[in-house]
Amino acid sequence: MAPALDKKLTGLVAATFTPFTTQGEINLAEIGPYIDYLTEKQGVNNIFVNGTTGESMSLSVAERKDLAEEWCRKAKGKMDQVIIHVGCMSLTDSKELARHAVQIEADGIAVISPSFFKPSTADALRTFLYQVSSVAPTLPFYYYHIPAVTGVNMPARDVLENIEELIPFFRGVKFSGNDLMDFGQCVSYCQPHWSALYGVDEQLLAALAMGAHGAVGSTYNYVGYHVNELMSAFDHGDIIQARTIQFKIQELLSYAKKLGFDLGVNKQLMNEVSGLSLGPPRLPVMPCPVDQALAIAQKYHSLFSKN
Amino acid sequence: MAPALDKKLTGLVAATFTPFTTQGEINLAEIGPYIDYLTEKQGVNNIFVNGTTGESMSLSVAERKDLAEEWCRKAKGKMDQVIIHVGCMSLTDSKELARHAVQIEADGIAVISPSFFKPSTADALRTFLYQVSSVAPTLPFYYYHIPAVTGVNMPARDVLENIEELIPFFRGVKFSGNDLMDFGQCVSYCQPHWSALYGVDEQLLAALAMGAHGAVGSTYNYVGYHVNELMSAFDHGDIIQARTIQFKIQELLSYAKKLGFDLGVNKQLMNEVSGLSLGPPRLPVMPCPVDQALAIAQKYHSLFSKN
Amino acid sequence: MAPALDKKLTGLVAATFTPFTTQGEINLAEIGPYIDYLTEKQGVNNIFVNGTTGESMSLSVAERKDLAEEWCRKAKGKMDQVIIHVGCMSLTDSKELARHAVQIEADGIAVISPSFFKPSTADALRTFLYQVSSVAPTLPFYYYHIPAVTGVNMPARDVLENIEELIPFFRGVKFSGNDLMDFGQCVSYCQPHWSALYGVDEQLLAALAMGAHGAVGSTYNYVGYHVNELMSAFDHGDIIQARTIQFKIQELLSYAKKLGFDLGVNKQLMNEVSGLSLGPPRLPVMPCPVDQALAIAQKYHSLFSKN
Amino acid sequence: MAPALDKKLTGLVAATFTPFTTQGEINLAEIGPYIDYLTEKQGVNNIFVNGTTGESMSLSVAERKDLAEEWCRKAKGKMDQVIIHVGCMSLTDSKELARHAVQIEADGIAVISPSFFKPSTADALRTFLYQVSSVAPTLPFYYYHIPAVTGVNMPARDVLENIEELIPFFRGVKFSGNDLMDFGQCVSYCQPHWSALYGVDEQLLAALAMGAHGAVGSTYNYVGYHVNELMSAFDHGDIIQARTIQFKIQELLSYAKKLGFDLGVNKQLMNEVSGLSLGPPRLPVMPCPVDQALAIAQKYHSLFSKN
Repeated sequence: MAPALDKKLTGLVAATFTPFTTQGEINLAEIGPYIDYLTEKQGVNNIFVNGTTGESMSLSVAERKDLAEEWCRKAKGKMDQVIIHVGCMSLTDSKELARHAVQIEADGIAVISPSFFKPSTADALRTFLYQVSSVAPTLPFYYYHIPAVTGVNMPARDVLENIEELIPFFRGVKFSGNDLMDFGQCVSYCQPHWSALYGVDEQLLAALAMGAHGAVGSTYNYVGYHVNELMSAFDHGDIIQARTIQFKIQELLSYAKKLGFDLGVNKQLMNEVSGLSLGPPRLPVMPCPVDQALAIAQKYHSLFSKN
Repeated sequence: MAPALDKKLTGLVAATFTPFTTQGEINLAEIGPYIDYLTEKQGVNNIFVNGTTGESMSLSVAERKDLAEEWCRKAKGKMDQVIIHVGCMSLTDSKELARHAVQIEADGIAVISPSFFKPSTADALRTFLYQVSSVAPTLPFYYYHIPAVTGVNMPARDVLENIEELIPFFRGVKFSGNDLMDFGQCVSYCQPHWSALYGVDEQLLAALAMGAHGAVGSTYNYVGYHVNELMSAFDHGDIIQARTIQFKIQELLSYAKKLGFDLGVNKQLMNEVSGLSLGPPRLPVMPCPVDQALAIAQKYHSLFSKN
Repeated sequence: MAPALDKKLTGLVAATFTPFTTQGEINLAEIGPYIDYLTEKQGVNNIFVNGTTGESMSLSVAERKDLAEEWCRKAKGKMDQVIIHVGCMSLTDSKELARHAVQIEADGIAVISPSFFKPSTADALRTFLYQVSSVAPTLPFYYYHIPAVTGVNMPARDVLENIEELIPFFRGVKFSGNDLMDFGQCVSYCQPHWSALYGVDEQLLAALAMGAHGAVGSTYNYVGYHVNELMSAFDHGDIIQARTIQFKIQELLSYAKKLGFDLGVNKQLMNEVSGLSLGPPRLPVMPCPVDQALAIAQKYHSLFSKN
Repeated sequence: MAPALDKKLTGLVAATFTPFTTQGEINLAEIGPYIDYLTEKQGVNNIFVNGTTGESMSLSVAERKDLAEEWCRKAKGKMDQVIIHVGCMSLTDSKELARHAVQIEADGIAVISPSFFKPSTADALRTFLYQVSSVAPTLPFYYYHIPAVTGVNMPARDVLENIEELIPFFRGVKFSGNDLMDFGQCVSYCQPHWSALYGVDEQLLAALAMGAHGAVGSTYNYVGYHVNELMSAFDHGDIIQARTIQFKIQELLSYAKKLGFDLGVNKQLMNEVSGLSLGPPRLPVMPCPVDQALAIAQKYHSLFSKN
């Protein structure tokens, strides 16, 4: 079966957490229930696997393959699209994962900039992306832009310049940054079959105004339902309603930040809200103190309880 | 005549350049024509004087007083509101300028965080702001937030916490930053008589979606006409049209950035577009090479020529 | 009386705190006793007035003049050299202070890079420095390099390039940075009558190895006696003894840092150790909680008590 | 054969480049000649393998194993100590490499902080290091501190706190940073059998003054001979001679930096100077333009030619 080349990626995409056992091993058994939770409770039908939220850089190549395979298998018939992030510090590893993504019939791959050694120019980064894509030339390809994490600050728009000449199946960008001029310029440069996906959940509404086609983020694991309403309100011209929802999410995340919000807390919050058993994070991310996640979960319920 | 306390500050506010002679002295004679240009050609009816665009930190206290006085005098009957920025590195200087702003019947004052010595907490900054306001207690007061320039990164929202208890005539924030969660939280916290004014011109549309009441910026000196159209389109629910204008401004500024865009270039671009004689900037800002400003002006005309 | 042009500035230079009254006004009366303390108790015979330690950027021009004048007057016959820092954000203000330094017969002036507007090249900064020096052309001139505070990161060595052609009385650099390659290159480029003065007190020994001719810092107000011993040990080839003293200073400052060390704490520590009444700092620097300074003073005494 | 536990690591340690073929595959055949070059031409008898200079983060785990094994095999009888860097973004991978280092009889391992996900406290990092060491408990262990690259800025001294309780074979720190207060505190805290190794080649002399026991760096591949002289001069109290050599190295690196100095240029410079064929770097590091390396090599020869 060929990947769904014609389906433009839009709407919400959950960046999935990686389920671990309490001993810290990957826990494939939790993937099925996780997918059901996203589709049934959150109305989220696309996933971004092995990304930052999924702690991919803390996983071995073998673990990433096992996870990618299981996510694809369990998502079949339930999710619209499964995008596998195959970015690594090492080009060799990224190529291996890209080849594997073809075998497991992923709907697309995404690649982050390497960040230990940083590409010095947009051209160097584009060449790196091209090298990864070259072993999976007909798989939809997304560039994952997250400068605050990678420290690679060149405008995404510069990376996109003529990129289709190198990567014919280029399909868009996951843009996780605050520079909305750069994002706007990406939207403006997008081909009709590309997607400009925004990745800073707490200011999605701003990116929608700028023309975002969809959104990828970790919070859509637990506020997807409400963000679907936000996007729908925006589409219908009800900016007031969209803003009301956005402000609630900001209030939640701002509250969480004051308590100390990191990936470990985020994961435990998901455990609390969803009832899934995704386990602790892996070092160097530290497990979340129980009361911290509980306090945030309480805030979540006070903000979003339907009455 | 009492300041216009009841008038909420909305719409476009031009952050004015400071006119210099070619010898580098302040040039008060150009202020009258400058105001006429803004009202007649750009449809801009509010000004923010002696701010970053006005090179205030490169001026002496005496120069800032002379400028503030002339701006207020010439604006009378022509501008809706004249906000004088009185922020300095030195609290002593800021208080002197605040007292002066009362005398010249400014419509309000604004204060930036000191940045050589940086307040270590929101409370320290709020206390500094309060001390300035204490000598002009009935003058509308705005906090000027521009973390990328000051290096003072505490959320504006934290600075606003209970600020009316200290500064009864607090009237809002000029928010020049990319963190739209913080901006959204400021909007959400605003009292009805406060204004959340956005200051990153190249992504104003994003801030409008987030609820901005107005905008303060340097580019409104020369693209004010078009941004008025952008804001009008947004108000009427025509997001596509608003986005089209925003993208043009992004294209202009992105082009300028690639050529090297700083305050000196910005000022010379204004000279080219407006025909005013605002002179060169003052050291340490370097004058703009002629061909650089000309190339950007050409881009400006190609983007915004009407027909 | 002409300034002491032939005297190369070497050894220890205390960067003086500015005495304030408890009401926050400058307190000229404390300057005489302060000078006596430095010469008699610390063996420090040079001062750097109105620098960062002196909170110069929080002072008005008039206050800086009053202070400079009193320091020069009281130091006469007691101190070897009094260097007045005249750097400001505004070139206009800096020139006024430079003219004044000539009148009060200072032994030299120093200028920091403006930091609100930052010079974009070494040439822009050198031109700024030249403009200041041009109104005091025969006064010894020092460039004050402190990139972590100003955010102006160009190598000091680049600023020094051919600087004597512009500033004939250029006499050296106060280098307050950790980049000892840049410092070494400055030392290597120094003319025989220049001084390379190091300004990161906690690693002075490293700079001595690299060829520093002297040191300017705030801690020499209260550990000058011991650092004179450090420098003497180094000069006599006793690196072990020099290191022992340096490690004690590191232990003190490391302890202070863990408790929260800023200019307000530093000033209060000086009050505790010296018995002088230098008052609190000025906003935005916050006063030091009493117990914090006491704890650090206790550490000081436990490290440096003689017996 | 047991690892050489009693040998304290001192003197010069070359951080080795990884030899690649022109096709970008690892080139084990060049390792033998490389070792001979270091011992015979540079007088360097210790190596730090698969570190930053070795582009380890751009290698797969399998490649790192092959390299580590060959370096150990070829170094036997020629090098005093071979330290294998086993730090990875993934704890899983680091443990696998640590186990392997035991098998190949490395003299020690070193671990960098993970930098994609950053430990939030010294305790989190220490726990990560402990986990790696736990699979190689009797192998000498070094912490590799390089904050400018990792963005992990907590003081190395804090990481060392009571670390022997977790890692009984802890043997020291490779400190690649400019904060010599932190370095001094590490030296001061060192147990007699630990080594404080400095890693910023251009200011080694400063670190020697602060008590460094040795040095690890990439430039010792081609200026090792001269730096041995520098260290010898320092040991004999001839600071002037040590400084003269240090200034030459600064002049070389400063010249290189102005031309654009990165790992690719560094590697090509080594090719030029040594005559070895270490190949190009791997993406995202870009190959060095030929004339750039030649110009730097020319500078090298002009500075260090013996006559």
